[in-house]
Parts: sequence; structure tokens; C-alpha cells
Amino acid sequence: MCAQYCISFADVEKAHINIQDSIHLTPVLTSSILNQIAGRNLFFKCELFQKTGSFKIRGALNAIRGLIPDTPEEKPKAVVTHSSGNHGQALTYAAKLEGIPAYIVVPQTAPNCKKLAIQAYGASIVYSDPSDESREKVTQRIMQETEGILVHPNQEPAVIAGQGTIALEVLNQALKPSVKVYAAEPSNADDCYQSKLKGELTPNLHPPETIADGVKSSIGLNTWPIIRDLVDDVFTVTEDEIKYATQLVWGRMKLLIEPTAGVALAAVLSQHFQTVSPEVKNVCIVLSGGNVDLTSLNWVEQAERPAPYQTVSV
Amino acid sequence: MCAQYCISFADVEKAHINIQDSIHLTPVLTSSILNQIAGRNLFFKCELFQKTGSFKIRGALNAIRGLIPDTPEEKPKAVVTHSSGNHGQALTYAAKLEGIPAYIVVPQTAPNCKKLAIQAYGASIVYSDPSDESREKVTQRIMQETEGILVHPNQEPAVIAGQGTIALEVLNQALKPSVKVYAAEPSNADDCYQSKLKGELTPNLHPPETIADGVKSSIGLNTWPIIRDLVDDVFTVTEDEIKYATQLVWGRMKLLIEPTAGVALAAVLSQHFQTVSPEVKNVCIVLSGGNVDLTSLNWVEQAERPAPYQTVSV
Repeated sequence: MCAQYCISFADVEKAHINIQDSIHLTPVLTSSILNQIAGRNLFFKCELFQKTGSFKIRGALNAIRGLIPDTPEEKPKAVVTHSSGNHGQALTYAAKLEGIPAYIVVPQTAPNCKKLAIQAYGASIVYSDPSDESREKVTQRIMQETEGILVHPNQEPAVIAGQGTIALEVLNQALKPSVKVYAAEPSNADDCYQSKLKGELTPNLHPPETIADGVKSSIGLNTWPIIRDLVDDVFTVTEDEIKYATQLVWGRMKLLIEPTAGVALAAVLSQHFQTVSPEVKNVCIVLSGGNVDLTSLNWVEQAERPAPYQTVSV
Repeated sequence: MCAQYCISFADVEKAHINIQDSIHLTPVLTSSILNQIAGRNLFFKCELFQKTGSFKIRGALNAIRGLIPDTPEEKPKAVVTHSSGNHGQALTYAAKLEGIPAYIVVPQTAPNCKKLAIQAYGASIVYSDPSDESREKVTQRIMQETEGILVHPNQEPAVIAGQGTIALEVLNQALKPSVKVYAAEPSNADDCYQSKLKGELTPNLHPPETIADGVKSSIGLNTWPIIRDLVDDVFTVTEDEIKYATQLVWGRMKLLIEPTAGVALAAVLSQHFQTVSPEVKNVCIVLSGGNVDLTSLNWVEQAERPAPYQTVSV
């Protein structure tokens, strides 16, 4: 990685040292049944078991620890962010670890369990409309009112470096460095796919409608160059494919992932993924989080398909 | 253990050798939040990750392998059992491993996901009424028709020895041998508690109504002496306590256990358990299975309580 990106590999290595005392080294699990269904060897990196229930604590904690100066008087008065939930929860937890108040701007439409969890960790929630514009506006207001420092959920370089520590762990736990990197996203929120297609940053035009609430916001100026140059391919999946993959992990692996975490498996099981060379035998899938609202599972029955109950060879 | 029980400790050790090549050594997980809530150190033995989704494969496989003679001609023509689901699923899988047809008598009222899973593993399902009497009657008929051998879900000594291998693993993984053994069951299906109270085997009078469908059938002649002499205490829990504990494991541990597997945690969190000496600091809880019917979660909202979202100290 060269200077054209907002972080370097050394930043990821530093982040790893920065945060490793306070996060879990999450396990990599496998499932022989899912290997059969996918026709490849799948390695599931279980970030649903991570502190605060998703990988987001990695970036949040790395960012917060970067804000702590040597003298306690200069400690920031507050941290502020806008988030569909998991980053907000993570930032709140990280801020509490370091004794800093957190203000989280959350769209009204976020799952209830995420709002409750943010409150449980002790943050102040401020609501916005679901549009990117409203989020930004409310965030600016709160930053002024609290003299708080913004920790952006996905464009802050220290956050990006923190999330990158997943790859360091996976390389140690499962795979060799000669890996390809594939991205996956809902067809209904395909800004990453469209950006790669057009060769320029192309945000979602409207607030997208997808069950994968964690990937509704668009990629940004800091992440676009990394995705443009270092992601080998982007796979988009339908809502039904996401629901099916999520239920497969629930039913077969007994892991309570949130639908956003089902997007990557949906991509690996998709028709399009069949075009990936059969030489790609080992696939690591990051199960990004487990903060699912169990009271809103009204879609479960609809998505039922015969496949997970097909006859299983022993 | 002496000759008054249907199995000895040596049988459990033999079972361990018998089955260990074909089962998972399931992990023991911990949760700092659940430790806080319980006020003790909890160790969760994750049998929901076991082959066929519950601990029942241990007993089923040990029993089946005990039936296999040295010459293939004497191999049994079929195995038969009655089961609320998990034993049926496990027996089918074990029978398939050894190339024996399986017939499973299942009450009509069993969760749909269990019936489908039994079929997926390749067994023939035969339906009965939910009463113990109907189960026995249908089972006898099928045994005659198929010349099949009965593998009883909980009274067959080889099954009991197989299930006992959980303890061998836990002793290796988490705890010292100076353990106490506590049993947990729903107040609505408290035959174990009543038996201990009266000092004699006291089956449930009627088919019990409980969300913990895996423990609806009563203890029997072979297990009663073991429970009578070796179980230190029995804790009964309400349906609401089971629902609450189950959701706590889903929400906080991201493990998709079935409600039956929530019974043990419910007991540890119960008022009654407060009478257990605070010197009992470490508690191992067997999460017995994860075969939950996700299309029947209509009780989830009702059971919501503020406690799991109380402020969490970091």
C-alpha cells in the first residue's frame, strides 16, 4: 500500500498492538454441511462473538485510543458519531473504557435492539432521519454543542486501520497471504459495485431498503481508493439470498448472526460466485456481527427454502 | 458408582473411546456479561455445536456401535426409537453412519424443524400422539413390522453412557473433579424434582406443557437411581424464566440455543439458586442443543425484560 491511501499496512499493525488487550481473538469456525453446499472450504471468522457483538469495536477502540493524549487535561470532552448501530455501540463501549462521554446519532429506523444496546452501554442517543444528509446535519450540531470529536464510522483512518486487524488475525488463523479479497453487498445498496463498474465513487442515490441494515450507508472518499485498487471483485446479492444465507448460519451453525453478516455467505453461495475459479478452494467469510432484533423476525417464514433440509450425506 | 446403577464409570470411559472419532469436542465458552448477571463464573459447554445440533449423538452413536457385530451378516435390520426430536435426529445420523435404516416415532406436536431434520438425515418418521402411552404403543408396532431394535432415548444404558461423555470433556476443559451436580427442569415438567422429594420415581401425570420440548418425557427406571443418589439438587424454573434465559444466551452470547438448552441457565439465575453457597464460584452449564424452530418465535416479544439491557459495567 502506498501514500495514495489514507492508511498504510503499518497503521493496521499499530492498531493491532493498540487494541489487542481489550478485544477478543474471535474463533474461526467451519461447517462440513456448509462446505458441501458451497463446494468450497469455508472459514467463518466469528466477529459476532466480538466485544459489543460486532467487529466495529476494533476501529472504535483504535480511534479513541489515538485521541487520548499524554496529559489527562487534554482528554477530549466527548466523542460523537452517526451509526446504524454497531459502530455506535462500539464507540460507546470504547469511550467508556477511557472515561469519555459518547453521543450517538442514530436514524429512527435502526433496529430497536441496537438502540437499546447503545443506551445500555451508557451513551446519549440523538435521533436523525434515515438520509445521509440528516445524519450529517444532526452530527454537526451535536459536535458544536458538546465540543465533541467526530469518530466517523467508516471514513476515519484510525477506524479503517482498526477494522483491518481482522485480516491480520485471519492470516494467522486460517489462510496464507496469497489471498484474493472479495466484497459483498446487497443489490439494493450496491454503491460499491456501481463505483467499481464506473471507475469512480458512486454513492447510493436514495437511502437503500435492505434487511442488511449495517451496510446502508455508502462508501466514502477514504475507503473508495482502497476498494478500487485492492478489492478483486464485488458480488451483489438479493434480499432473498441474504435471508437464506442468514438462516443457513442460524440453522446449521447455531450462530446468531445479524442479516448484514449473512451478506458475505450469500455472495459465496450465489450463481455469480460459480465463475470464481474452482482453484479458490478456501474461502474465509467474516461474520461481522450478531446484533439482530429478534422481535422483528417476521420474514423468517417467507424465506424458508427446501435447500437447508435437503438430504445430507454423512 | 456401584452395581446398583445400569452403567458404571468404566462404561462412560468406553463410550468416550467408542465415539470420539465421529463427534465434535465442543468448546466451552464464557461471557463476562452473564458472569456479572449470575454473580458466578459460568462455563457454557456448547453442545448446540455438536453433530446433529445436540448432545444426543453421543448416546445414539455409542448405542448403535454397540449393536454392530463382528460379522456384517448379523447387522441389525433396523433401529427404532421414539423421541421429541433430538434423539431421533441423532439416532438417524448414527444409523446412517453404520448403514442401518432408522424408524423414528415422533409426537405430532414436535417442532417442525426437528421433523424436517429427521427426514433430511434420511429416516422414516412414524407419528404418535404426545402421550407416553401412545409413543410406546406405536414404537412396539414398528419394531415388530421392521424387526428393528429399540434404542430408547434415555433408558438405554449405552445411551446413558454416551451422554456421560460430556462430563469427561468438561472435567478436562474447565473444572476439577470435586464438582457438585445440579439438575434443572421446567416447573411444568418437574418429575425429577417430585421424584427426589418423594424418594421414589414419580413420572409426570399428564403430557406436560412447556416450551422446553426436549424434556417433556419423564425420567425412567434406569436413570432414576443415578439421579436419586448422584444429583445434589434439582432446580425448577418457570416458563418465563426459561424464555428469559434463552433470550439472554441469544442476545449476549449470539448462540442459537433451543429453549430446552435455556433451562439450565434459568436455574442458575433463579432465586432458589441464591441459596447455593457463594463458594460455588464456577458453574458449568451444558447448552444441550440448538434445534430451534425459528418460525415459532411468537413468544419472543412477550418475554422481553429490561434486565439484559441494564447498564453494563465495562
